[in-house]
Amino acid sequence: MAEFIAPLEELIEGFARLPGVGRKSATRYALSVLDMNDDDINAFSDALANAKARIKRCRICGNFTDTDICPVCEDTERSPIICVVEDVRALMSIEKVREYRGRYHVLGGVLSPMNGVGPDQLNIASLLSRITSENIGEVIIATNPTVEGEATAMYLTKLLTPLGVKTSRLAYGIPVGADLEYTDAVTLMRALDGRRELN
Amino acid sequence: MAEFIAPLEELIEGFARLPGVGRKSATRYALSVLDMNDDDINAFSDALANAKARIKRCRICGNFTDTDICPVCEDTERSPIICVVEDVRALMSIEKVREYRGRYHVLGGVLSPMNGVGPDQLNIASLLSRITSENIGEVIIATNPTVEGEATAMYLTKLLTPLGVKTSRLAYGIPVGADLEYTDAVTLMRALDGRRELN
Repeated sequence: MAEFIAPLEELIEGFARLPGVGRKSATRYALSVLDMNDDDINAFSDALANAKARIKRCRICGNFTDTDICPVCEDTERSPIICVVEDVRALMSIEKVREYRGRYHVLGGVLSPMNGVGPDQLNIASLLSRITSENIGEVIIATNPTVEGEATAMYLTKLLTPLGVKTSRLAYGIPVGADLEYTDAVTLMRALDGRRELN
Repeated sequence: MAEFIAPLEELIEGFARLPGVGRKSATRYALSVLDMNDDDINAFSDALANAKARIKRCRICGNFTDTDICPVCEDTERSPIICVVEDVRALMSIEKVREYRGRYHVLGGVLSPMNGVGPDQLNIASLLSRITSENIGEVIIATNPTVEGEATAMYLTKLLTPLGVKTSRLAYGIPVGADLEYTDAVTLMRALDGRRELN
């Protein structure tokens, strides 16, 4: 049995397509499926088959939704601040903190000329139109602190400033619980730059 | 958006049922599905739905198969030695080494009175009948080196010896690449017991 039998092989290949899952983990997952009960397997299989059809993008902000408008945009209690993120993953991370009670806008990526991603490939036009239609007072640009994320933040700032809206960027600094000894020089420099007075 | 939308939640729950997959990894996997192409998703979903129906147990040895008899048992070149393993995972591990060219027998567990697993719950009767029908010369007992695995090995030896078949057990010792300093006392004792003369 140099190779696995076809149905097992197909299942392993499915799992191996997931990010960070190698052949060994995929095999482990595939074998565990054989021990699951039929209802669980069918629910899993259906969720998988229907995910793309059932999960749509919110017409307003680009978040995932199963209706026309996502739960965040439907929430009328949210203050007129927009947090601009690269993808839904970032949106979820911020929501999980339960500190921010504003709205979101999902760009769907960052500017990356090397990969052929220009402003037209991103969800930027609708962001600009939301500023006036939703009477937005501040835009927090929460793209990742990478070269592309920075470039995108600068580009957006240039577009947003003429609209009279305040733009801000997430603070750079030392992550809580980190050790100064192991913090890279750029982060330390940014942490010094952004130092705050103690009252 | 304190919780995820239903179709995403269902998909996350499916992935979270896999061994060693927590909610965070499950979410990552679920989101990655949305970036896959439809053919891959459908193949994955079908493999999942059909796995249990298509993957059967070999009538002879208990290995996984999609036909009546597994590829190992169908291989007439295999020498008349049986390696007894707890489960198919162990069989696969031994096959991967490509050193052993005998047959297998999958017990489907180990004796564990605490969990209500007695000899009748294991695939033992068919092992005994194979000894004569396949003219087996040696049985290698490759249950795991746990209390239950040991007890099962001893039980099998008692059953097999009267049949005039040679029984053996995998060697205990220090794993290759390990450090004596960090090897537990029982393993070291077994390694001393099983020492081999250098020629």
